[in-house]
Amino acid sequence: MIKKEGFINTDIEKTVKAIIDFIRRYAIDLKRNGALIGLSGGLDSCVTLKLCIEALGRDRVRAIILPERDSDPTQMRDAKKFAESLSVKYTVKRISPILWWLGVYRLYPPSFLFSRSVQKRFVIKHRKKLSKAIGKDLYLANLEGENNQELNKGLAFYRIKHRIRSSILFYYSELYNYLFVGTSNKSEWLTGFFVKYGDGVADIMPLISLFKTQVNDIASYLNIDAYFIEKAPSPDLIPGITDSDMLKMSYGKLDQILAGLERNMTEDKIGRISGATEEEIERVRSMISKSENLRTWPIGFN
Amino acid sequence: MIKKEGFINTDIEKTVKAIIDFIRRYAIDLKRNGALIGLSGGLDSCVTLKLCIEALGRDRVRAIILPERDSDPTQMRDAKKFAESLSVKYTVKRISPILWWLGVYRLYPPSFLFSRSVQKRFVIKHRKKLSKAIGKDLYLANLEGENNQELNKGLAFYRIKHRIRSSILFYYSELYNYLFVGTSNKSEWLTGFFVKYGDGVADIMPLISLFKTQVNDIASYLNIDAYFIEKAPSPDLIPGITDSDMLKMSYGKLDQILAGLERNMTEDKIGRISGATEEEIERVRSMISKSENLRTWPIGFN
Repeated sequence: MIKKEGFINTDIEKTVKAIIDFIRRYAIDLKRNGALIGLSGGLDSCVTLKLCIEALGRDRVRAIILPERDSDPTQMRDAKKFAESLSVKYTVKRISPILWWLGVYRLYPPSFLFSRSVQKRFVIKHRKKLSKAIGKDLYLANLEGENNQELNKGLAFYRIKHRIRSSILFYYSELYNYLFVGTSNKSEWLTGFFVKYGDGVADIMPLISLFKTQVNDIASYLNIDAYFIEKAPSPDLIPGITDSDMLKMSYGKLDQILAGLERNMTEDKIGRISGATEEEIERVRSMISKSENLRTWPIGFN
Repeated sequence: MIKKEGFINTDIEKTVKAIIDFIRRYAIDLKRNGALIGLSGGLDSCVTLKLCIEALGRDRVRAIILPERDSDPTQMRDAKKFAESLSVKYTVKRISPILWWLGVYRLYPPSFLFSRSVQKRFVIKHRKKLSKAIGKDLYLANLEGENNQELNKGLAFYRIKHRIRSSILFYYSELYNYLFVGTSNKSEWLTGFFVKYGDGVADIMPLISLFKTQVNDIASYLNIDAYFIEKAPSPDLIPGITDSDMLKMSYGKLDQILAGLERNMTEDKIGRISGATEEEIERVRSMISKSENLRTWPIGFN
């Protein structure tokens, strides 16, 4: 079953089989009894969970949901619903007490007096103001670093959430002797759309060589409810910030640009296939180069 | 000033200059105002701190000491003393409340009723028993994974400490817009003697291309008090476990074996230069190959 779309060819059946084999092989190689997944309610973690169940059986798979003060309640509800639909064991562990203790929430005062939609509007306004103050694309500033106190406060604020999550996921995976299976995909990886040593780490990353649009195709093939495929992807770290707010284009377009650049296609051809403007292609090129340091490990002198 | 010892040649002055340049360049490239170091009281973090001060000036360097319930009080005292001797700003932030909250200390009950030497004797006895139960070298079992509940409990117990530390160090480095400078060296890196995504991560790792014995040479060159160079290196994660308990040989010997293997020398020649037995060389080879997965990131199928 081959799907060809622009620069991206996917043999969906073969890919799913390969991923399942990959998960099984690593569980054996690293002598683990099963797999553990941090379930956010987003599509990537749902697909990863389903693939782990296909590979190891539901009795050898556990999900952990790790919400905090600013998490979208809908996401947690979705995560629970998905785990229940697969009859897989899951635990909810709130990380807010750790973030309170570290003083993270003091950076942005508690906002439980306001509705989520008011919070979102506040964030959007704040983001616009900040972008204007820096005089730069906020996402690129986030990647390359910037000497702006307000921006740095924001980075510290959202990144520690994922780092605490990965610390806890490693902890339980070691305790159970399970593989900690990460959920990052290739579109996020290449554009730096992950937290370095946060959601960017795990024992294995089954989706890391798949573009987001390919993850969608696999989700359909695995009969995952269309609701999960169609809802807007979001890192769920700050209310009101979705993937497309930062990436500023659909994954459909982004993935074609990434695949075109990977194949060394001309800008002209990439533009024709993806429908992207020259400026959009340039911005993606910047995201790739400015996130290079996030993918390099360790950075040492030679 | 060239030091030649067996397979290892070091131009100490040139190396120190190169590291200082490297730190400066990355601070500029990533637009950071200074450098942040997690200070343990061990030599590697002391050397790293001193190098950062040489590179950026003491006003642009901060140290954070992150002790927990099981930390050696001597190490904390040494860390403070060292920071004070350089007149560099430092903060002490205890991570025990987080570990309590996560249930980590419930894995091994609090032992404040016992003196540290009794604790140490208990750990040594426990380690021997565990090694016998597994029927294997405990360090190699720790690297390659093992389906033994007691071992896995131990792994979960000690690894989360460093992961929480690195999460906090990233947090403050982002808040101050400082580089988080890691302290791992090449001997640890090649033998897997680090916590994956714990002390194995940072923004930059200035010592990562230096063997431990080279770090010692640099420490002398930087006029670091001999006390710090001579004290037994220890990860300070579990009372009574030092580097040499796990590595089972001196860094002098280990480094010669590592350098010999790196240069594809015959086992015979490595034995002659390092004074190691065939069995010791074989064990180091195992450490390198079994820790391969700790240095690979991300692990994805292709």
